Order: sequence, then structure tokens, then C-alpha cells
Amino acid sequence: MTKVLIFGHQNPDTDAITSAISFAYLQNALGVEAEAVALGPVSEETAFALNYFNTTAPRVIETASNEVDAVMLVDHNEAQQSVSDIKDVKVLAVVDHHRIANFETVDPLYYRAEPVGCTNTIIYKLFKEHNIEIPKEIAGLMASAIISDSLLFKSPTCTQEDIEIANKLAAIAGIDLNVYGLDLLKAGTNLADKTVAQ
Amino acid sequence: MTKVLIFGHQNPDTDAITSAISFAYLQNALGVEAEAVALGPVSEETAFALNYFNTTAPRVIETASNEVDAVMLVDHNEAQQSVSDIKDVKVLAVVDHHRIANFETVDPLYYRAEPVGCTNTIIYKLFKEHNIEIPKEIAGLMASAIISDSLLFKSPTCTQEDIEIANKLAAIAGIDLNVYGLDLLKAGTNLADKTVAQ
Ligand SMILES: [Mn+2]
Ligand SMILES: [Mn+2]
Ligand SMILES: [Mn+2]
Ligand SMILES: [Mn+2]
Repeated sequence: MTKVLIFGHQNPDTDAITSAISFAYLQNALGVEAEAVALGPVSEETAFALNYFNTTAPRVIETASNEVDAVMLVDHNEAQQSVSDIKDVKVLAVVDHHRIANFETVDPLYYRAEPVGCTNTIIYKLFKEHNIEIPKEIAGLMASAIISDSLLFKSPTCTQEDIEIANKLAAIAGIDLNVYGLDLLKAGTNLADKTVAQ
Repeated sequence: MTKVLIFGHQNPDTDAITSAISFAYLQNALGVEAEAVALGPVSEETAFALNYFNTTAPRVIETASNEVDAVMLVDHNEAQQSVSDIKDVKVLAVVDHHRIANFETVDPLYYRAEPVGCTNTIIYKLFKEHNIEIPKEIAGLMASAIISDSLLFKSPTCTQEDIEIANKLAAIAGIDLNVYGLDLLKAGTNLADKTVAQ
């Protein structure tokens, strides 16, 4: 199989960026040549998580078909939220936790959606199903996404499974969910900077 | 959760009928009140499998919204292949091995598609993931679907995973795949009757 690009939605949030990174790690471990890319620059919240876990931001692409024939989508499925030339590439796989709409393929594909609070909650289960160990840094990024999408478990979309898996990821990453989680959310709201400045 | 109906596509083939039966069994084991129904009468091939494994054909429904608020789809996703009033019910889950098209939801859902030869190949994996034992009769029906969809592993859509899982199901069901498989496919083509008559 030739190289595939993996990316989340436009105006990427922490889940869109880190689920591309974690799913690309899993695909590479499974023997697929995959690169995590992004459809826009990372937010301050995401930059905080990437920096904390010593990971660089994925490069930003404008189009995919100039580089690859096939892609995998994470944290979205709707065409208008995806890469501009989505119609010109084959979608091999989708991992998502949103409704399905404006999505259509010519061929069968791998599609994994669950009504949970975060794409990385599903990706955690995929790591387990394939018996692939999650490295500390990847686990930290995945936990960051669950914290971000669930606003530290306060969002109505957050499920018991999100909470349990966030705790397992935090143990691998060596973080305290509440301490790290507040720092992460503060970084996103710039409260950290403001507190320093004021 | 209130009762849900589970069904395959119109003009049901053996996979459409038996994946409704096997997925409904799994859902019931998981605590969901689910009934397998069908969008049309069973074929002679499917009748052979149901009879062999002492199972009655699912009742045929014309509409779903007069009975339930929510449904689960197996072996299809496209609206024009589904129940006539699909727009009036909530789709909670889909398990399928076809391309995705003409499918849209308002809310997040469980969607499990893989590019394999048969829906029951995926349902086998779901039983394993949930640690639910597959009864002998259900295993026989699931093996029948893989035989049917793959024409005894000769179809180009058949994957190594379909073959491996068919063998595991055959062991549970106590059948010889080649002997039973040829009888099943013969029942579908009516060759069995013709041989007797001629
Ligand atoms: Mn997102
Ligand atoms: Mn998300
Ligand atoms: Mn079918
Ligand atoms: Mn099928």
C-alpha cells in the first residue's frame, strides 16, 4: 500500500490534531505508511499539549490529491469540513464521533464511529484491539484530546467510557488529569498568560 | 432503552437475514431489547440455512416507525435499500460492509463498517470484543452468510479474514464448510430440487 495522509477537520481543535497523530502512529505500527497532517494551524491549547509531550505540530496541507491517492479521516466525515479536494482522493478509513452527513464513497471502507465524547476514546480501543502499546507521549496527547472535547468531563457529550479511558491514558502518560487538564484548558483560553500579565 | 428493530436490506439475501438475527442476539446479550425483522421474505437459500439450524424466519415489516423510535441497520446503509420510513426513525447503529452513500443522521451513532466480504464477519469480531459466546445455531447462520456472500470463498470481495472467521464459525456450528456450503448454495439455485426431479 502506498502512503496515506491522515487528518482531522478544518479549524482543527486538539482532538482533530492529536487523533491524526495517534491514528497515524497506529497505522504505522500496523504496517501502513501514514503521515499525520493538519488542515490548519494548531490552537494555543493544542500547542500547549504538543509542547508538553515533546511533539511537533503536523504540517498543514491545502490539498491531498497532489501528494497521495488515499486518505484517512479522523474527528470528522462531512465533506465541507474536510480537505478541499476530498472528492479527488479515496477515503480508506474514518474514525469519528460525530453524526454522519455529506459523506459518500464509491467503494467499501473502514468506518468506525461511536457516540462517545472524543475520537481518541475510540482510537484507544483500536490500539487495544490490535494489541499495540501506546507510547507515553501519544497517550498524553490522547488524554489531552479527551480533556479538551469534554471540558474536563463536564460536557454533556462525555460518556463513562471517555472518563475511564482518559484515566488509563493519564496513567500511561504520567499526568494528573485535574492538574494537567486545568493547565491545558487555561492555555486554550489564554488565562495562563493573563494571570501572569495581570 | 426501549425496544429496537434490527434489519438488513430489501430483497434480503442470507447475510441480510442472518446478520439481523446474529446482531439482535448480541444486542440482547448486551442488555438491549432488540428484535430481528426483515424487509421481505427469505430466499430458498436462506430458508435452507434457517431450517438446518432450527431457526424461524424473522417476521416481515413494511414500516418501522409504527412500532419503534429507533432501529439498527445491518448489511446496508443506503436509504433506498432500507425500510420505507427510515427518515422517521433514529438509526442507533449500523454494521455493514458496503460503500456509504445516501446515509445521513442528525445525531452521533455507532457505525461499524469494514471492507470485508460479509457483515457477519464483522459481527463475529463484535462478539469477540464483547466477550459474548456465540451459540451453535447462530454460528451456523453466520457461517452460512459468509459462504453465501463469498460463494464459498470464490468471490473477489472475499478476504482472508472472512475465510478464517468462517472456519471458526463452522467449528462452533459443527459443519464441514465444503459439504454444507455446497448444499446451501445448491438450495439457492434450486439445483437440489432439480436433481431430485430429474
Ligand atoms: Mn474536533
Ligand atoms: Mn472530537
Ligand atoms: Mn446483502
Ligand atoms: Mn453482505
